[in-house]
Amino acid sequence: MAKDFVNEITDMHEDFAQWYTDVVLKTEMVDYGPVKGTMVIRPYGYAVWEIIQRYFDNEFKKLGVQNAYFPMFIPESFLKREAEHVEGFAPEVAVVTHAGGQELSEKLIIRPTSETIIGEMFSKWIKSYRDLPYKVNQWCNVVRWEKTTRPFLRTSEFLWQEGHTVQPSNEDAEKDAQTMLEVYKNALKNLLAIPKTENEKFAGAVATYSLEAIMKDGKCLQSGTTHNLGQNFCRASNIKFLNKDEKLDYAFSSSWGVSTRLIGALVMVHGDERGLRMPPNVAPIQIVIIPIASKVGGVVEKCNEVADLLISNGFRVKVDNSNNTPGWKFNEYEMKGVPLRLEIGPRDIENGVATAVRRDTHEKTQLNLKNIENEVKALLDNIQNNMYEQAENNLKAAIVETDDFDTLVNEINAGKVALAYHCGDSKCETEIKDKTTIKTRVIQEYDTNHKCIYCGKKSKYRVYFGKQY
Amino acid sequence: MAKDFVNEITDMHEDFAQWYTDVVLKTEMVDYGPVKGTMVIRPYGYAVWEIIQRYFDNEFKKLGVQNAYFPMFIPESFLKREAEHVEGFAPEVAVVTHAGGQELSEKLIIRPTSETIIGEMFSKWIKSYRDLPYKVNQWCNVVRWEKTTRPFLRTSEFLWQEGHTVQPSNEDAEKDAQTMLEVYKNALKNLLAIPKTENEKFAGAVATYSLEAIMKDGKCLQSGTTHNLGQNFCRASNIKFLNKDEKLDYAFSSSWGVSTRLIGALVMVHGDERGLRMPPNVAPIQIVIIPIASKVGGVVEKCNEVADLLISNGFRVKVDNSNNTPGWKFNEYEMKGVPLRLEIGPRDIENGVATAVRRDTHEKTQLNLKNIENEVKALLDNIQNNMYEQAENNLKAAIVETDDFDTLVNEINAGKVALAYHCGDSKCETEIKDKTTIKTRVIQEYDTNHKCIYCGKKSKYRVYFGKQY
Repeated sequence: MAKDFVNEITDMHEDFAQWYTDVVLKTEMVDYGPVKGTMVIRPYGYAVWEIIQRYFDNEFKKLGVQNAYFPMFIPESFLKREAEHVEGFAPEVAVVTHAGGQELSEKLIIRPTSETIIGEMFSKWIKSYRDLPYKVNQWCNVVRWEKTTRPFLRTSEFLWQEGHTVQPSNEDAEKDAQTMLEVYKNALKNLLAIPKTENEKFAGAVATYSLEAIMKDGKCLQSGTTHNLGQNFCRASNIKFLNKDEKLDYAFSSSWGVSTRLIGALVMVHGDERGLRMPPNVAPIQIVIIPIASKVGGVVEKCNEVADLLISNGFRVKVDNSNNTPGWKFNEYEMKGVPLRLEIGPRDIENGVATAVRRDTHEKTQLNLKNIENEVKALLDNIQNNMYEQAENNLKAAIVETDDFDTLVNEINAGKVALAYHCGDSKCETEIKDKTTIKTRVIQEYDTNHKCIYCGKKSKYRVYFGKQY
Repeated sequence: MAKDFVNEITDMHEDFAQWYTDVVLKTEMVDYGPVKGTMVIRPYGYAVWEIIQRYFDNEFKKLGVQNAYFPMFIPESFLKREAEHVEGFAPEVAVVTHAGGQELSEKLIIRPTSETIIGEMFSKWIKSYRDLPYKVNQWCNVVRWEKTTRPFLRTSEFLWQEGHTVQPSNEDAEKDAQTMLEVYKNALKNLLAIPKTENEKFAGAVATYSLEAIMKDGKCLQSGTTHNLGQNFCRASNIKFLNKDEKLDYAFSSSWGVSTRLIGALVMVHGDERGLRMPPNVAPIQIVIIPIASKVGGVVEKCNEVADLLISNGFRVKVDNSNNTPGWKFNEYEMKGVPLRLEIGPRDIENGVATAVRRDTHEKTQLNLKNIENEVKALLDNIQNNMYEQAENNLKAAIVETDDFDTLVNEINAGKVALAYHCGDSKCETEIKDKTTIKTRVIQEYDTNHKCIYCGKKSKYRVYFGKQY
């Protein structure tokens, strides 16, 4: 009996949030942990994270970044050093008060980020321009206590990478922030097939760059951020260096991070009514091979032979030779988003072919078994590109340009992102947010004669307004 | 000026503990974290961990093990489930009592291991023999609050891997425990060049296998453990499966782990008065190239050219073209334990050679630049094997066989491991421990007419006695 997976997943147009939860749970990417707000990343979800990790790790190392590991316990006093931190994190930290059977004399914070502890260590290690640039990255868990949680998107504990570079000049720090933004952009496009809009926020010598991806429900998800921190971080952490003129000065720094949220973005940008759709470059299983009439002599052997050939060519392949029916398996791997299915039965073998079915277009073709590694490669490349194009079209279709505020609100409530002109005044921005929960997502400088969509004053920016995850 | 590193490191024969601390700090493998008992694993130390991790991860995956991530917060009630756990861990856990600005209704334990939480999830996921074998591994941080700490050997937080397999029969679980022991043994030998003795502890259907390595001060360090847990773990976590006879039964399981302690073992097995000695297979830098008379035209270029060639052949190579003197650099990379140094100067280039100096024997040879990738390969293989042999000789020399208890105590206090006969009675064992702090490290069944070295009763075992880390 063919299992009817589609009926097990909520209609995404009816309830996108429930669709998301159904998909990530039923595909066994994730499960809820026993402590409220925590998640277990199951092997199928973790395999995606490993591919993302390996991709970034290679890119970071090419740029001279070295990995390190900093303790997760931060003395409470560290968090009080920077007013900014206390405001940002104090209400959402987890606090260790007892250890080793005793009450601690100083409470310990579990890292919401490692920046204070990294700053502390850098101030010990960095003394002179000869020590620079200093480029360190950490892969680890972090904790931010959240009231409302959703797997991958917002959980009390999640996994991420946090990179920091220390440089002798602001230009060097700025260059690092931009280089890493480039790394993140390339990963979104080439690995995850996710198109994005870019946000730049300048404040004096300091800048923040972020990538915003738009989900299928029209909400925005921040998918990677890089900062040029100027001397702010080094001043807060007392990171001084002897420059080439033999003078002590605060150093300059950048920081940048991505997290397991990217997996949530992947699901919400590409998923459909049948479940996940994995772009081939990030798919834990790129090709599933399903024997047809598997009891006929030679069928399973041929499936395994094709799998071995494809694996030796670097593809990630699974043969499903379980007792389930072919129909059950088709549904199973469609739900799991495997980009390419190969069916091999007695007739296929006779004809020297495999029947290939794409997850993105449901198109069926015959591949020549003699040249299958090349035909599969071409198909997977095509699927990757096509999924990017589909996502780009969705992005374009999600954006509505308007100069009328009521239209803006209505369109965003109907699942769109609105592009409009804005004065740039933070008071005006806050009023909009308080009134409508709508936020500015992406701000681009844009000098025209337009008026601000809300307050009517002269516009300085073109702004994407939307709701966010 | 050649920096005199040797004088910066305490003589290992005078004070081995201080020698160890000097070496791991001065080589920048590790630093102390701001919270007492925590460590920062610096890039040079973390690079070792990454090589160890990648090695094991490949081996695990070949055996069908998948990685996953379980939350680090464990409800306090989980730890009370098993009396064994409470006894083992309660005094050394760290406890989160507050999060999100509020006191929690149930305290959270930070995982000392993940086994209770993994058991909880397995009991949800595993239902039938069709779900078995289930093989999961996790790379993560764990916390065990310790009074006396030493970098890598015993810290409040450390990194490890924890693998669990669930099987339908005791034989399958036993096989997993033994297969993983084999993986650990091979890694000790082939990667870390560490010889070991093996300990087997049987208790009914349940068995524990551990690898004991002997450090240069004669103390033992447990360097990898695997368990066949029989049905104990599954019973405690209520992991039941429908077997092929359609009957519900508790499943069988194995577990196995190694940690960042291995880095401590690496230091204490191979290090010498000049600092670290890295076996080539685990060395973050296998070859350092040092330009001689680097201002002479073509020298630095030749160094970089050789480096590129070696890197493209898969070696881990660094060229040090800094302003420090060659003598300073020689000492620096000797201290850091780089297995092979290549010196290239104008005369070497003229002769078409590089001067190679081995870290293990200090032997100097000339390598032909035209065939350097093969000559380097042969040298590194030779160093790896030689370091294993040296360590094996040290192990043999550390073991003293005796049937006199006073001799046993004296030899162990003088930095040896004693091999003796023992009755196997745990009361006798405890008496020895309480009186002398000496423990049985490795126990082998051995039926002879010998008498127990302590109580004089009939001996059943041959036992290695020693002190431990």
